[in-house]
Amino acid sequence: MGELSRRSGVPIATIKYYLREGLLEPGVATAANQADYGEEHLRRLRLIRALIEFGGAQVTGAHAVIEALGNPELHPHDLLGEAQAAVAPRKRPDRSTPEWAAARTRVEELIAAKKWLVMPGSPEIDRVADALATCLALGVTELVDNLDAYAASAAGIAEMEVAAVLSRRDAAARLELVVLGTVLGEALFGALRMLAHQHESARQLGFQVE
Amino acid sequence: MGELSRRSGVPIATIKYYLREGLLEPGVATAANQADYGEEHLRRLRLIRALIEFGGAQVTGAHAVIEALGNPELHPHDLLGEAQAAVAPRKRPDRSTPEWAAARTRVEELIAAKKWLVMPGSPEIDRVADALATCLALGVTELVDNLDAYAASAAGIAEMEVAAVLSRRDAAARLELVVLGTVLGEALFGALRMLAHQHESARQLGFQVE
Repeated sequence: MGELSRRSGVPIATIKYYLREGLLEPGVATAANQADYGEEHLRRLRLIRALIEFGGAQVTGAHAVIEALGNPELHPHDLLGEAQAAVAPRKRPDRSTPEWAAARTRVEELIAAKKWLVMPGSPEIDRVADALATCLALGVTELVDNLDAYAASAAGIAEMEVAAVLSRRDAAARLELVVLGTVLGEALFGALRMLAHQHESARQLGFQVE
Repeated sequence: MGELSRRSGVPIATIKYYLREGLLEPGVATAANQADYGEEHLRRLRLIRALIEFGGAQVTGAHAVIEALGNPELHPHDLLGEAQAAVAPRKRPDRSTPEWAAARTRVEELIAAKKWLVMPGSPEIDRVADALATCLALGVTELVDNLDAYAASAAGIAEMEVAAVLSRRDAAARLELVVLGTVLGEALFGALRMLAHQHESARQLGFQVE
């Protein structure tokens, strides 16, 4: 366990906590107070870290993702949903308002215009409507006006990410990339967006950077 | 306060809590148990909701953003940093490792190649390095390989968002869009990315959607 802690950078007390919570499988006992941990443990521990420490997931959310990863019947779409729900535990706005219904219609129009292959009852449609409805309620019409441009950019990212998942050989490696790509891809893109804001505001305001 | 609660959709108990925590200014007292709340209160309340309920910020984070909004000396860049820190309270990886240093160098090369106008000591550079280093530590090389494409996409989004901020007339309205755009733009883009994943996996796997 000491080596596992050293190689993963996770303190022993935290590893013991993950073991108690069932996030991590016990090692193979070799003596009364000794157990062997393999590469699989290290991999799993890194996944938990990505979800909890970097993605901001709660232990219960990470648990759901890890259970989903171990379920061979689960469709990758549903796993993606679990990963997304675990790292983005946001409250959603009231879905019974006329504003929300208008936002939902706007998303349906977008899907039709872009000929996106999306199931009509897909929960992702409602999540986009949640974000749009909140923009409308807060008077941030700029984001709504630029919806098409956001969608085009998201589609470009998604094309690349799905191709990366499909280029992995086996199902387990693909599923792992679905989860990690969801968490880390969002973090990476978010950080790049902030960096690009700095460049763009300097550029559009005509600043010089020394 | 009853009307403020009805119009904002925030329960009275929550409004009282925000008042006690100093997130919301008291209304103008009109009688012993009565106070008037104006449009400014409604606007502020919606901003707090966006930060806390939709962006997942903590009360202390929302407090920092609201204080920053009231500070006329603060540069919009720093306000953006406050907003981002409030809604993304992620643990960062160890910055003393050789892997992190390699990731940091990769970000510097990206900035140079794209000729981005970014201050050399900007904290956003470190945040991108955090995300990249975590990808490398977890063996998710696909995201690192696609860094240029992520950056190009982030630049497109940022160009549009900065233009929207600059098209607002007064400083207060601009600052509000900086904060709300950071929170809601990320939520909107994230939801669209998930929706686009569904389309792309159906398309690349050759599925039909009925």
